[in-house]
Amino acid sequence: MADVNQLQETINDMEFILRKMSVIIKQKGREILQNFPITPPQFVALQWLNEEGDMTIGDLSNKMYLAFSTTTDLIDRMESNQLLERIRDNKDRRVVQIHLLDKGKKIIDDVIEARRNYLSSILTDINDEQITAIHDSINSLFEAMKQDL
Amino acid sequence: MADVNQLQETINDMEFILRKMSVIIKQKGREILQNFPITPPQFVALQWLNEEGDMTIGDLSNKMYLAFSTTTDLIDRMESNQLLERIRDNKDRRVVQIHLLDKGKKIIDDVIEARRNYLSSILTDINDEQITAIHDSINSLFEAMKQDL
Repeated sequence: MADVNQLQETINDMEFILRKMSVIIKQKGREILQNFPITPPQFVALQWLNEEGDMTIGDLSNKMYLAFSTTTDLIDRMESNQLLERIRDNKDRRVVQIHLLDKGKKIIDDVIEARRNYLSSILTDINDEQITAIHDSINSLFEAMKQDL
Repeated sequence: MADVNQLQETINDMEFILRKMSVIIKQKGREILQNFPITPPQFVALQWLNEEGDMTIGDLSNKMYLAFSTTTDLIDRMESNQLLERIRDNKDRRVVQIHLLDKGKKIIDDVIEARRNYLSSILTDINDEQITAIHDSINSLFEAMKQDL
């Protein structure tokens, strides 16, 4: 019984840590974005286009859990800033796809680089073996979370 | 040099995992909240009141990185739902503090319980020793992040 309680305590504390760590990651992400000409939802949209390639506004709305009209506003703003463009689908000219432009790609690469630098800076006092162990642990947790999706 | 590159690869992958895991945690948190009569920002506000006790709307605005008027709207809605109440500060009657009510406390406890259950469910295939190792790893990372704040 003691072991069961101890395991539950560990899981309870893990929930607390993950909840608080997510807040820090979100806040740090917002701080980093202040040095770039994009907003947090724009960063999320650019990530999707960067990882999955061209897609319609409908597809992007679904992935971002946003209303179609909200996503359209987001795309309009980024199109006028030349981060992306609307293009006609080659297979079906009636379909409009969103395509990431070089300027958008450059911004997302730079933001990710800044996030990596932040992570490196907080890990300076931790030795390489421990960093690998932390990586492997959070990777196990990430894999378990993905299986549940 | 190979080791330096390998460490950088590990950190790059860790950045990716943390970014994606935060999205899953946020989305899962939203799903859990759909079973409760509060919104995500209301959950954040209730957490602050639960952890730090009574505070003014100004203090809460700062902690939540929200405009004063946005926080006031949030508090108005939760006060009409009897999750919290405005009370006069005993030391300075001109100051209004926000006080968590039993109904608000019950909701936040239930939400946290649901989050713990989610975490337990995704960890079922991982043995106790590994769960402890994952806990300790993310705790090291959390401590390193807190030192940087």
